[in-house]
Amino acid sequence: MIIDIHGHYTTEPQALHQFRDKQLAGLADAARKPSSTDLGISDEALVQSVQPQLKQQNERGSDLTIFSPRAAGMAHHVGSEAVSVQWSTICNNLIHRISTLLPENFIGVGQLPQFPGVSPKNCISELERIVKELGFVGVNLNPDPSGGYWTDPPLTDKHWYPIYEKLCELQVPAMIHVSSSCNPNFHGTGAHYINGDTTAFMQLIQGNLFKDFPTLQFVIPHGGGAVPFHWGRYRGLAQEMKKPLLSEHLLKNVSFDTCVYHLPGIELLTKVVPIDNILFASEMVGAVKGIDPETGHHYDDTKRYIDQVKTLNDEQRYKIFESNARRVYPRLDALLKKRGKPGKKA
Amino acid sequence: MIIDIHGHYTTEPQALHQFRDKQLAGLADAARKPSSTDLGISDEALVQSVQPQLKQQNERGSDLTIFSPRAAGMAHHVGSEAVSVQWSTICNNLIHRISTLLPENFIGVGQLPQFPGVSPKNCISELERIVKELGFVGVNLNPDPSGGYWTDPPLTDKHWYPIYEKLCELQVPAMIHVSSSCNPNFHGTGAHYINGDTTAFMQLIQGNLFKDFPTLQFVIPHGGGAVPFHWGRYRGLAQEMKKPLLSEHLLKNVSFDTCVYHLPGIELLTKVVPIDNILFASEMVGAVKGIDPETGHHYDDTKRYIDQVKTLNDEQRYKIFESNARRVYPRLDALLKKRGKPGKKA
Repeated sequence: MIIDIHGHYTTEPQALHQFRDKQLAGLADAARKPSSTDLGISDEALVQSVQPQLKQQNERGSDLTIFSPRAAGMAHHVGSEAVSVQWSTICNNLIHRISTLLPENFIGVGQLPQFPGVSPKNCISELERIVKELGFVGVNLNPDPSGGYWTDPPLTDKHWYPIYEKLCELQVPAMIHVSSSCNPNFHGTGAHYINGDTTAFMQLIQGNLFKDFPTLQFVIPHGGGAVPFHWGRYRGLAQEMKKPLLSEHLLKNVSFDTCVYHLPGIELLTKVVPIDNILFASEMVGAVKGIDPETGHHYDDTKRYIDQVKTLNDEQRYKIFESNARRVYPRLDALLKKRGKPGKKA
Repeated sequence: MIIDIHGHYTTEPQALHQFRDKQLAGLADAARKPSSTDLGISDEALVQSVQPQLKQQNERGSDLTIFSPRAAGMAHHVGSEAVSVQWSTICNNLIHRISTLLPENFIGVGQLPQFPGVSPKNCISELERIVKELGFVGVNLNPDPSGGYWTDPPLTDKHWYPIYEKLCELQVPAMIHVSSSCNPNFHGTGAHYINGDTTAFMQLIQGNLFKDFPTLQFVIPHGGGAVPFHWGRYRGLAQEMKKPLLSEHLLKNVSFDTCVYHLPGIELLTKVVPIDNILFASEMVGAVKGIDPETGHHYDDTKRYIDQVKTLNDEQRYKIFESNARRVYPRLDALLKKRGKPGKKA
């Protein structure tokens, strides 16, 4: 079974965008606030909206997508905390409906109602709701709710501890994923996303977070940003800081996904990062939708790259495609087992 | 001949640090201002201070280092514009003295007296001085004078045009290099530097800067940040934006250095980036000074990695080690020719 751990709902019905416009217009003119949080989207319309994802799952040969609201759509820097709470609830509910309608294809991961300068404590009730009531298996945690100005503390600061405690208690991992950038210096998918990944990993090197939270699991998307390309730099910096080897210091708790859109990148990733720390993902339909003229295939058809890496054996591919995801997302594993899909081994 | 295009003066005599302390103390208490800009550093002390670099040039087999003030030391966000002007002048003068004392080993690149929110026009007189009077062959341009808050406009904004006009007129390239980070989210060499590189490249993809400045040359250090690892992403994003191929859009004007501190990273760099766009560099004595336990050699001994890449032929190595640098730094080439070192070909 092939599990794509990183998909966002980027094909939302117009009704969701119309709601968001009204919600934000309501900040300037209360008369424009949406009259209801019922978007009026039918089950049929939801199923219709994810046909592109289903088509690509089918064509590319993946089975299940771990599915969350559009990352850029979270926009935690916009409006107010109350806006973020309402918006997160609505977006999470749509993901829940889709994964209920198409349980073989999608399983939910949530967005949190973060807001810059506000303690992540404010996210705990939504986190409990999406895991306990909606059956989500993970969350996206935005390390920069300011959207490109990085005004909140680093991930290793005690500021974040309440949410980590709850993540450990619930046994759900967090993907460390920024949202859109409101800083004109940072293109969203071309700079802010990748910088967010690199920044998060370096913060984790500097700190000792997993001494305090030995069971906490983080996924760093987009192949870990710049980290694998500069693996020697990061090993060397950790060494100068008298930290343990990365295998000991971070790699029991941190994994990278495979959203790297060319074969040489995937070759590097699988060469330098231990296979146990690599989770298959494509982020489709997502950041880079085109066809690579050098290959004739979609840039984000990352399964093709993994299939082509000559140095990987079947067991390693099984880890990347399935068993690592079952380990990092224990609630996913439990759910699959309940459905009679135990996987090849524990 | 092997030219290392990226070295900073990180072994400065204590007198320079003492001056800086007094200079900044003077902001709070004018009575503490340094009484003179004469640091009282003898030629002997300067030559002594760069013995570590000379030793490593000798041991590793490089000949000439393109040498600039400590990158983190520029700290454009600190103090005032006047502080930045005084500090840049002093730091550049030390580089000039070293490259005059040891002309076979060092050639100067300068820092600019940037300050957040101030037009780079303010740097033109120092730029003219270091090129025309001190014989420098390039400059470091900080894309984020705020030191990690990114409050100035992107590099493609007209804000920067005055400095680009002067760079073209003088025929000197700019290395796009941030300085220290005062944002606790960004470790300097582990996050801010790499993010700065990635951000700059993406800004250049979004814009059309080299239509306005067809002869402008930029070097993006640290192997281009995350860019080569995500080469497919960047090709795909440019394609979605209807930009020309990167070879046409940027690669006549943008090069990457080889400050990537492990063999798999250098293998990727030389595989995806055209060889004409790769300049040898190590940034020694710099960001990562230790010995890699996996190889028994210094992380930043990048020449070893290039020597080991099996797919490179002699002509390609010659480009990386020498002739690309001569092309990107025409004043360096002219100087070497004047010294009777014409290189193998034009």
